Amino acid sequence: MAEDEGITVKKSENFSEWYNQVVLKAELADFSPVKGCMVIRPYGYAIWENIRDFLDRRIKETGHKNAYFPLFIPESFFKKEAEHVEGFSPEVAWVTHGGNTKLNERLAIRPTSETIINYMYSQWIRSYRDLPLLINQWANIVRWETKMTKLFMRTREFLWQEGHTCHRTKEEADEEVLKMLDVYREVYEDLLAIPVIPGYKTEKEKFAGALYTTTVEALMPDGRAIQGGTSHNLGQNFAKVFDITFIDKDEKKKYVWQTSWGLTTRTVAALVMTHGDDKGLVLPPKVAPIKIVIVPIIFEKHREAVLKKSKELKDIIEKRYSTVLDDREEYTAGYKFNYWELRGVPIRIEIGPKDLENKQVVLVRRDSGEKKNVKWDLLLDEIEKLLDSIQKNLYNRAKNFLENNTVEVDNYEDLKKAIKERKMVKIKFCCSEECEEKIKEDTGATSACIPFEEFEAGKCVVCGKETGKMVYFAKHY
Amino acid sequence: MAEDEGITVKKSENFSEWYNQVVLKAELADFSPVKGCMVIRPYGYAIWENIRDFLDRRIKETGHKNAYFPLFIPESFFKKEAEHVEGFSPEVAWVTHGGNTKLNERLAIRPTSETIINYMYSQWIRSYRDLPLLINQWANIVRWETKMTKLFMRTREFLWQEGHTCHRTKEEADEEVLKMLDVYREVYEDLLAIPVIPGYKTEKEKFAGALYTTTVEALMPDGRAIQGGTSHNLGQNFAKVFDITFIDKDEKKKYVWQTSWGLTTRTVAALVMTHGDDKGLVLPPKVAPIKIVIVPIIFEKHREAVLKKSKELKDIIEKRYSTVLDDREEYTAGYKFNYWELRGVPIRIEIGPKDLENKQVVLVRRDSGEKKNVKWDLLLDEIEKLLDSIQKNLYNRAKNFLENNTVEVDNYEDLKKAIKERKMVKIKFCCSEECEEKIKEDTGATSACIPFEEFEAGKCVVCGKETGKMVYFAKHY
Repeated sequence: MAEDEGITVKKSENFSEWYNQVVLKAELADFSPVKGCMVIRPYGYAIWENIRDFLDRRIKETGHKNAYFPLFIPESFFKKEAEHVEGFSPEVAWVTHGGNTKLNERLAIRPTSETIINYMYSQWIRSYRDLPLLINQWANIVRWETKMTKLFMRTREFLWQEGHTCHRTKEEADEEVLKMLDVYREVYEDLLAIPVIPGYKTEKEKFAGALYTTTVEALMPDGRAIQGGTSHNLGQNFAKVFDITFIDKDEKKKYVWQTSWGLTTRTVAALVMTHGDDKGLVLPPKVAPIKIVIVPIIFEKHREAVLKKSKELKDIIEKRYSTVLDDREEYTAGYKFNYWELRGVPIRIEIGPKDLENKQVVLVRRDSGEKKNVKWDLLLDEIEKLLDSIQKNLYNRAKNFLENNTVEVDNYEDLKKAIKERKMVKIKFCCSEECEEKIKEDTGATSACIPFEEFEAGKCVVCGKETGKMVYFAKHY
Repeated sequence: MAEDEGITVKKSENFSEWYNQVVLKAELADFSPVKGCMVIRPYGYAIWENIRDFLDRRIKETGHKNAYFPLFIPESFFKKEAEHVEGFSPEVAWVTHGGNTKLNERLAIRPTSETIINYMYSQWIRSYRDLPLLINQWANIVRWETKMTKLFMRTREFLWQEGHTCHRTKEEADEEVLKMLDVYREVYEDLLAIPVIPGYKTEKEKFAGALYTTTVEALMPDGRAIQGGTSHNLGQNFAKVFDITFIDKDEKKKYVWQTSWGLTTRTVAALVMTHGDDKGLVLPPKVAPIKIVIVPIIFEKHREAVLKKSKELKDIIEKRYSTVLDDREEYTAGYKFNYWELRGVPIRIEIGPKDLENKQVVLVRRDSGEKKNVKWDLLLDEIEKLLDSIQKNLYNRAKNFLENNTVEVDNYEDLKKAIKERKMVKIKFCCSEECEEKIKEDTGATSACIPFEEFEAGKCVVCGKETGKMVYFAKHY
């Protein structure tokens, strides 16, 4: 592989540049001529399709149905919920003209769809029989970011799903919030092999307009945390603004309780950052668009025999796993090794003249580089075991990283030191906006979450007030 | 079912009102508070998901990969291809502000993505080895329609896929155009049971910026035609504007040849219109989200036994077909019959106390209303046959309609008469814009397509000039 095709910096030395190179050179995404907007290239989009399909299946299994709501939100709707508009206004893109005509009212391009969806819900819901209403939408979202663009991580347009549900009681809504948060945990831990910390957001960090927000937080190798997916209990805030009422069993008119929850293409950024290495992308098998690549080792004399066997094996393997046979003539085997390592394919199969003789192939793991000779008749079993082992190994590696880089401290100096050392820091914390603002100013860190477990009471590391809460802090993407 | 829940007009008497009622009452879609934009409700979206999944599979089987490009197109890009900008400018929605800041350059919301995609292609393509480049995108599209909104048929935002491909030669591009047009024919004929007429668009009706456009045209029951999906050979028009070149095998630098092709949520409108009847929606089994509904016929004495058997049968059937057991207690069996007929479910299974005795159920076809007693142990076989028969029957019915409502005429008076009688009319035609404009003015009809077959030469029905072409004309949606 030519110098400019491979990754030219080490992950440990220049993480940011390493990330950009991996995303661009593995052809996951590209910058676009529209400032702040990205192009998701086919290989990156295939990863997103796998994430989407996994999540869509779980969303449907948990009783939700997909629908589609307008991209545009009239300015007057958008402004109905006070906290919501305050939170999102600075980031809204506005449409002012249709064709050559100036619009009477500006249209916001959805930065999230609570307002337009809740208006519709007010039309559809009449009785407790209409509840729970469990709807999800897959859509593009626009938030006019002013910070620097980072592919998949921070772009003005991104893809996501947003669930919007209505319930009879607060308890049902609470249950829904945690159920979907746990589905997000599954996406991260079971599919992407990324361990997460679930918990509540603080008041300062909660969704604009929510009663409370829950989140799954992951720690990236550069010591910055990422909000992996959020699930909100909206209480009755939007219901009151949009007049979403139902006649309950007791024949009384009541406001519904609502939730919303979303997960975005940021997942791809977390995936790349967590598992990648100096050779490029490393994909957990469950989310890899290509699970196996076969590279025939060609010497002129045995060309036909090696290619024939390669094709035979491909036909057998691809019945079960998505497989590529790289029989391009213009490239060497070495070039191909680098090419597919850069793209993170979990298993490489090499087959050359000697392997023909021994009725075997060489299996190479992308995660560890480990090689193993495997007889043809044991191949499918061995692949199954290996894919499983790679998935687990990547998860365990990331889990170890998270554990080794999370520290609990009990005083402010140690907090500052730990953040400087790029740790996820756990502290006793009063959860006031004032103390949180102070930490942000002094260290650049923001709160990740208040984990669900109960803790012994103690003193807030910042102000010293008595508190029963522990909170994770880290610098955030 | 209450009066206001069922369809209150006859399809044959007020087609337009009948259509609106079916779409709204079967809960396929709803009007939104954003003028010209619709909400696709879960049942309608499930139909679209089936269409999308069928088409996505065929797009991938024919070698294409999905990707995602920005929603926004800078005004300067949009204006690069002269015909293109002329064709689309009147319908573009413009973003002028991001947050509180006025943008330096207005951004068009994509009315189609040729310009932004082709800019990226110019960055990615270097050599003949990069060709063919076969990419598809699933996306939302905005065209600022000024005509009256019609759910699924004409809305300012709609969903579609758009394929964009690059090839070495015109021949390859020609082949791609026809290959994807045939995939659209499959969507209509094999999945939606709607016969179509494939052919070329006239110069007047071709895509703005294309060398030529091909289309599949379907005739709706009110005598208006619908452009079902289009596939364009873009020639080298965009390649020259965006400088998409490659070094060919002969080491010469050449412009690529391009195609684009798209199919939209309009398919759902065609589906509703073609097969629906006075009771509501009628869905071909292959595209129906729910293929079977079981309605237990409850008499108090046998309640438990009937419900138990209903559940048993549901468990068996839903292993193979998506099935709903309607065991709601608050509604009568009669209400449920109407409810599911309105929603077009292909087969209803009734089971009551007598059926228990006879170890049978009653199967009712949605398309014909025909009933049949079937023994339990023959049930799955019978369902398979019935679904197949319904699919074929709906296609044949629509095919007969198309044939009976297509006429060939050889003079202008008969053309006018036939259009007035809501026919699809086939004429010898010179294909000049002048003659086409005259037909439109005199009759309201526009050209549907020039079918692919060869015809004997003859005289243009309008101007009398010698021509070798036959053209279909109809009023269009």
